[in-house]
Amino acid sequence: MAALDQLVEALRRLPGVGPKSAQRMAYHLLQHDRAGAQQLIAGLTEALARVQTCTRCHGFSEAPVCAVCSDGTRDLGLLAVVESPADQAVLERSGSYRGYYFVLGGRVSPLDGRGPKDIGGEALIARALDGGVREVILATSFTAEGEATAYLLGEALKSRGLSVTRLARGVPVGSELEFVDLGTLAHALADRR
Amino acid sequence: MAALDQLVEALRRLPGVGPKSAQRMAYHLLQHDRAGAQQLIAGLTEALARVQTCTRCHGFSEAPVCAVCSDGTRDLGLLAVVESPADQAVLERSGSYRGYYFVLGGRVSPLDGRGPKDIGGEALIARALDGGVREVILATSFTAEGEATAYLLGEALKSRGLSVTRLARGVPVGSELEFVDLGTLAHALADRR
Ligand SMILES: [Zn+2]
Ligand SMILES: [Zn+2]
Repeated sequence: MAALDQLVEALRRLPGVGPKSAQRMAYHLLQHDRAGAQQLIAGLTEALARVQTCTRCHGFSEAPVCAVCSDGTRDLGLLAVVESPADQAVLERSGSYRGYYFVLGGRVSPLDGRGPKDIGGEALIARALDGGVREVILATSFTAEGEATAYLLGEALKSRGLSVTRLARGVPVGSELEFVDLGTLAHALADRR
Repeated sequence: MAALDQLVEALRRLPGVGPKSAQRMAYHLLQHDRAGAQQLIAGLTEALARVQTCTRCHGFSEAPVCAVCSDGTRDLGLLAVVESPADQAVLERSGSYRGYYFVLGGRVSPLDGRGPKDIGGEALIARALDGGVREVILATSFTAEGEATAYLLGEALKSRGLSVTRLARGVPVGSELEFVDLGTLAHALADRR
């Protein structure tokens, strides 16, 4: 059945979904949860239409400027640099950070020829220099690529006279920031160096 | 963000997807694979519109009568009874079966008050009696509920003079038919009793 096979193919594109899970999902939706399939269509359609990139921090936003960037009560002097909207969300949920964000387009990858320019390094420097930033907190992952990203961006920021810190190494080495527990993250923020 | 949260909620309805995976999927689609999200919308929309129930076997079909039921070269004397379209698909893939199917709407569940009538038992009997069926093969799962389903349907079919067999117990006890390897399934078909 062409329509069923195409649904299985589409589900396989989701992260962490192999051929067996994709087939199981497709059969489940068609046999037991057609309302769930409709809800997923609506959720995807709405999210694609509404969730855009904040012009200021480059995180997810449903308005040209996101709720965080529009929040005047935050500390204008603090700018946290993260690799992705998911990492921004987890820092927010830690409840320990009251500054602003800059969301990179991933990490540098020397092997793939992806350097600071390819992940928004120039926009970050412009944002960090646009007035009031006292400290740039590099909150990239503690993986080899995350460390390289922090090193390269840190050097560029310092050469422009900016004060740069890094999350404390309370974060377990080798782990993705997105999967770190919130307590560890709160410690790492307090001990930033 | 309302649209993002609603997408996460919709993804959580998929089988095997918890809150963390749902969030990861939503962020991945919005940040890295908007084309994949569009493909999923199209796949879901097409499948909901096209995949219906075969009027004869009650399996999935894109036409009023499915390809298997329309296949005149199969053995009219054999009717395999399965719990779901997924189980029908796995029997087909085993390549060992050349008869027709009847797809139940699940299994009986005494605890939930779900009896043979609630899973299509009467339609099964009508189908089994509509001429030419020599043997009804009960291919329900080898779980407690699958065994109860086979027992209850088997008694009802035998009382109407039909010959009833069960897949051989080559299938590991306690397992769902959908997840059995194809070789075991081929053996179980050959040794049906
Ligand atoms: Zn923003
Ligand atoms: Zn059919």
